[in-house]
Order: sequence, then C-alpha cells, then structure tokens
Amino acid sequence: MALKYAKRMDNIRASEIRELLKLTQKPGIISFGGGFPAPELFPVDEMIEISKYVIENHGSKALQYGPTEGYEPLRTAIAKRMEKMQAHVEGKDILVTSGSQQGLDFTAKLFINPGDTIILEKPSYLGAINAFKAYEPNFVDIELEDDGMNMDELEEALRTTENVKFIYIIPDFQNPSGKTWSLEKRKKLVELGNKYDVAIVEDNPYGELRFEGELLPSIKHFDTEGRVIYLGTFSKILCPGFRLGWIAASPEVLNKYVLMKQGADLQSSTISQIEVATYLEKYNIEDHIEKIKETYKRRRDLMINVMKEEFPKEIKYTIPEGGLFTWVTLPEYMNSRDLAVKALEKNVAYVPGGSFYANGGHENDMRLNYSAMEDDKIVEGMKRLAEVIKAEMK
Amino acid sequence: MALKYAKRMDNIRASEIRELLKLTQKPGIISFGGGFPAPELFPVDEMIEISKYVIENHGSKALQYGPTEGYEPLRTAIAKRMEKMQAHVEGKDILVTSGSQQGLDFTAKLFINPGDTIILEKPSYLGAINAFKAYEPNFVDIELEDDGMNMDELEEALRTTENVKFIYIIPDFQNPSGKTWSLEKRKKLVELGNKYDVAIVEDNPYGELRFEGELLPSIKHFDTEGRVIYLGTFSKILCPGFRLGWIAASPEVLNKYVLMKQGADLQSSTISQIEVATYLEKYNIEDHIEKIKETYKRRRDLMINVMKEEFPKEIKYTIPEGGLFTWVTLPEYMNSRDLAVKALEKNVAYVPGGSFYANGGHENDMRLNYSAMEDDKIVEGMKRLAEVIKAEMK
Repeated sequence: MALKYAKRMDNIRASEIRELLKLTQKPGIISFGGGFPAPELFPVDEMIEISKYVIENHGSKALQYGPTEGYEPLRTAIAKRMEKMQAHVEGKDILVTSGSQQGLDFTAKLFINPGDTIILEKPSYLGAINAFKAYEPNFVDIELEDDGMNMDELEEALRTTENVKFIYIIPDFQNPSGKTWSLEKRKKLVELGNKYDVAIVEDNPYGELRFEGELLPSIKHFDTEGRVIYLGTFSKILCPGFRLGWIAASPEVLNKYVLMKQGADLQSSTISQIEVATYLEKYNIEDHIEKIKETYKRRRDLMINVMKEEFPKEIKYTIPEGGLFTWVTLPEYMNSRDLAVKALEKNVAYVPGGSFYANGGHENDMRLNYSAMEDDKIVEGMKRLAEVIKAEMK
Repeated sequence: MALKYAKRMDNIRASEIRELLKLTQKPGIISFGGGFPAPELFPVDEMIEISKYVIENHGSKALQYGPTEGYEPLRTAIAKRMEKMQAHVEGKDILVTSGSQQGLDFTAKLFINPGDTIILEKPSYLGAINAFKAYEPNFVDIELEDDGMNMDELEEALRTTENVKFIYIIPDFQNPSGKTWSLEKRKKLVELGNKYDVAIVEDNPYGELRFEGELLPSIKHFDTEGRVIYLGTFSKILCPGFRLGWIAASPEVLNKYVLMKQGADLQSSTISQIEVATYLEKYNIEDHIEKIKETYKRRRDLMINVMKEEFPKEIKYTIPEGGLFTWVTLPEYMNSRDLAVKALEKNVAYVPGGSFYANGGHENDMRLNYSAMEDDKIVEGMKRLAEVIKAEMK
C-alpha cells in the first residue's frame, strides 16, 4: 500500500513542544517546557458548582447542537471583557473557537494560497508557525526588538514583497520571547497595515496577565478599517481544558471564519460554552486573574533571581512584564538542542529556541516557562540548568 | 480595504442545513430539517452525576491540557466499542476529534491537492461535501443504489480517473438517503480499494442505530491493508453537545492525523473526554442506545405511514432500517427548493436534496429527519407536507 498524501503534509512536523510534553510526564522532571498554566490556581470548587448548575438548569439544551457562531451569552460576555484591552467590539463580532490555536489554523486557511507570504516576528510562536505551514506559505520574519518589530525592516518587507496576506504578532509578553510592543509601534503597525492593505492578526493570550507597568491598548484598539483580527483564549486566564477561545473580527471577515468553522467542526462544545458563560456571570474573573498574576510574578522573580545569581554574565535573558515565559540567549557557540539533552539528564526540560524561527537558523536560544512549576522546583531546576550551562562555557 | 482571501474561499458556502437551523428556531415550526438527535433522550440525570463526579475526582487535571491523541481511557473504550461494528482496533489506533465533522475536514486536508479526485456517493452528506470543497477537489459521484454504490460505475471511475485520493461513503442508513450497503458490496469496496490503491473513508455515525435486520460488519472489518479510515462520533448515540468523535486508522495514517490535530486545535476538550469515558464506565450505553432505537423506529413508522396514506403514489421514498433520515424523490417537474418555501409558509421545514449532490443537477429530492420531532408533530407536519406536495402535482 502506498497512499498518496497532499503536498502540504511535507511541511507538517510534530511540534517539539508537544513531543517534549510526553517526556515531561516522567515523574521527577522539572519542566520549563510547555506553556501550561498553573493547575493549582484553576477554580476547581467553582467549577464543581457550575457543572452541576449548568446541567440542572439547562438540561438537554446543554447537550444538544448549538449555533456555529457560539453561545450567544458567551459571545456577549467576551465582547464586553475585551473593553479591558480597549478593543471595542460586540457579541456579533465574536466567533467562539476551540482554543486560539483553531483561530491560527483558520486564519492561514482563510488567507493563504501556496506561496503567499506571512510576515511574523523573529522569533514567533511555534504552534502558529506549524499551523500556518500546512497552507504552504513563505515566511518573512522581522527582527523582534525589545519594544516590537523593527519597523523599518517591516515596512521594507511590505514594500518589496508580493502577496503578503497578513502580519502575525503577539503584542504582549510574546511567546516565546516575553517581549511587549510599545504604544508607538502598535499605532505604527496599524498605519502600515492600512498603507499596504494587509490584514493584521493579533494573537493575545497573555495580555491580561500583566504584573507590572501599565496595561497597553490592544492592536485592535487602533483598528480603523476592520483589518485587525483578534485571537483570544480562556486557556491562560481560566483554564485550557475546555478548549475555548475566540476570534473577533469585522463582519465581512467574521462571516468567512464562521463558514470555515461549519466545515471544520460545526461548533465548539455547547456545554463548555454555557459553563464558561456561567462562570463569568456568577464569579469575578478579575479577582481570579489577580491571583494568577500574583503567583506568576513571584515565579518569574524566582527564575530571574537564579539567572542573575548563577548564570554566566555573557548570557542574556528577557525580564517579562507579564505572561508565562522568559527567553534566554546563549553564546553563539552553544547549541540549545544539544544542551536540552544534557539538561534532561539532570531531569530539567525546556524548549530549544530554534523551532520558534519560521525560517530556522538560530540554535542558541531557550524558552523557559515559569508558570507551571511550584516555587521550590523553579529554584532547584534553574540551579541545575545553570550548572549545565556553566559546564559548556568556553 | 480589500483583503485578499485564499482561492479556496471561493468554494465555501454556508451550509443550507445550518442556515435552515436558524429559521427552525422560530416557535411553532415543525422541522424535519437538521439532523438533531432527540434531546428528550439525552441522559441528563446521569450527566448531572458525572459532571460532579469528574471534577470532584479529577480536579484540576480535568481542566488542564492533555495529550493531542486524546484521553487514554476514552481511546481504549472507543476501540473496545468498535468490536460491535466488527472493527478490530486498539486504543492506540484512535484519535479523539471534535465531532466526526473534524474527521471529514482533516481527511481532505490530509489527502487533497487542488484538482485531486474524491469519489463519493450520489447523493452524499452535505457537511462532508462542504468540508471537502475547502481543499479544491474534483468530485466523481457514483449512483447510490438501494444496496450501495453501483460497483461497475465505481470500478470504471477508479480505472479511468487520475489522482483519486479516497472513496468516501456512509455505509449504514446513509445521510441523506437512508440507504445501507449490502455485505457483498462492502467486501467488494475493499477489494477495489486494494486493487486501485486508494484510501476508503468510512463515515459511520448511525451504524449502531439499526431498528431492524441484522447489524452488518463495518467496512473497516474487511480492511486487510490498513487503508480504511473509520470516522465515528458520540453525537448520535449519546449527545452532540460535547463535540466528541474519533478517527480509527492504521498507525502510519493516524500519526498524520495527530500532527494535523496539533496544528488545528491541539486536542479536544479534556473535561468532556473524561466525562464521556466516565459515562461509558459507569453506565450501560447499550441500554441507552436501545431506548434511542425504540423511539426513532416509532417515529420512522409514523413518518412512513403518513407518506403511505397521504402522498401521491408517484412519489418515492426510502424506508430506512435505522438512523435518522428518509429521502423522498418528487416528480422531476417539481423543484424541492421552491417547495421548501411553500412548506415553510405552513411552518414545516426540511432540507432540499440538491445540496447533497456534489456536482449538483438534482432538484427534486427532499431529506426528512424523523429523530428530532415529537410523535404528534411528525404526523401533523407530514400531513401538511402532503398537502403542499399535492397542490403541486400535475
């Protein structure tokens, strides 16, 4: 038997993160890989109440098919919550998706013919790069500075590249780099989008998890022409197990996403949507987010402190103002994939940075997650990692 | 602003069914449209117990990310249940999906380059046709006889068509026609798949809902070379609100689906998977399926009886041995889309048959669903429909 697959399958590889997650199931591993939120913060008691309440009160309706666009009260609640990011949308502008990962897949499916170009940050989110690859794009990756893309380089790319369909960015505490776009560059990005008539895809899973500094307006806030597509998710502010996220877009664009959702899986889980809507109605998610921020800030500090004290001075890292990740740049003579094997021998895991470069070529970065490990493990794991790195220094 | 979408979007239209569902939300409508299972049969009381039990016993693990392939005990339980369809697979051969609709989308994504051919039944499931269209295939549709495809026509198509990637069929109580493949044609189908080295996609949401006659082995049962891809779902035997289905395939093929799942939405809902696995463990789903069958058989009989008594003799219809649908063929001078408007004026809805033909050209069929309406409404609605039809007879 020799089944013939589609050409796109040549581009699809296993996500290094998901593969790594399998390893990190090993007992005793201290994992800075993955991007898991802290499970001890999930509102388990509230969810016991809610899951009982929803099925008792909604009965068979909670178990039946529902509209493709999503559960109406959830769409309205999402739109209202987006005010926090200074994005002004209504329930009708929201499509509920199966996590924001589905928004990434749909976006490439919506825009990309083989050979079209996606502009994205360098580095960018591995899961987005992998989802996009299935639609056979070219990637133009733009240097990510401490306050966002190098805007001259971005404009040059827009000016000189044909068939650029969208610019993909994560504005707040980016995955993997932990970096945040400045107010000025946010404005400028939308101006460039308007000037060159390309869509802007704002992936914003972490924006609300800011521990310090001021909450900045989303890119969507600056959108004057309906070209910014906002991807959101409950995975990091509530829990990922429901697989619920959303797309906010202008009516014309949203309508296309809805058609795509019909073909892809009809709709997201009816019961999960009602449960999350009920949580938002009955509990104060802002209080819950405060608790998450407090814990993540403490863990970030623990991680950064070990790096300050134990890492050789040549090694650079981000001090993120929020989110789940820091990003470490090793000397160029080190290879972070090789180092990962040595770290695993000491029961410490992280994700090598190479996979976050859409066009490859960088092998001396590491992404470190601080949200998923308990405080003492962070300290212990980072000390071990420091030892592994020190042993490789020239 | 003039955003440029991918070429595939030219092929994607709103599903007539989903659009119709919006109309059928109107109070007072008797709807034979949609393919909704009877909500009064959903195990609501059991689900109240289970949702409480799962979160109390699994706690934060039920709300966290899980493996892409699916929740291990659910995969094992699904594989075991497939014995009923005489398909011999193990948990490792199962990928949990967001409904079987996701299996359809993934299958076209896995196999289809623009211009490749999909062979399918004539008529076939509208939701499959729409999902496939996003990948720009050619369709070769093969006459569906009372016992399956016309096998001579199928072999001729396989012999003369280039780049046939898969044959898509619904073997039991097909949506829309209500027809069932004979044992002989099932065997022959796999022989032809082997001979011409193409994949066979068996979409089997209704197989277990057989009211009369003998349960036939699935197509997967005859698979000797790992070329049959089986799509299953909990939507019709339990409830659709969880959006849980599965793909059973050989290791090589399944591995590709798993990569696709990573990019599409990472995984299906952790908590829903644990809930369904718990239901299968704590309750007897076979008893539950018996109840469904009893109700659907009664409703089928009610529907068929009105047709026998009230429909003009020229009108043909299927008497399905199971499942959710019957299929009515009107005289060729009638147009079932026009008729649908007249039926809606009498508050009766159905899905016109035209959309179930991948290559179009048939406008005198109707798909009637008998699972979702209560008994008295079926009788009343069918009488009204008979009046509408009689008024159009020449």
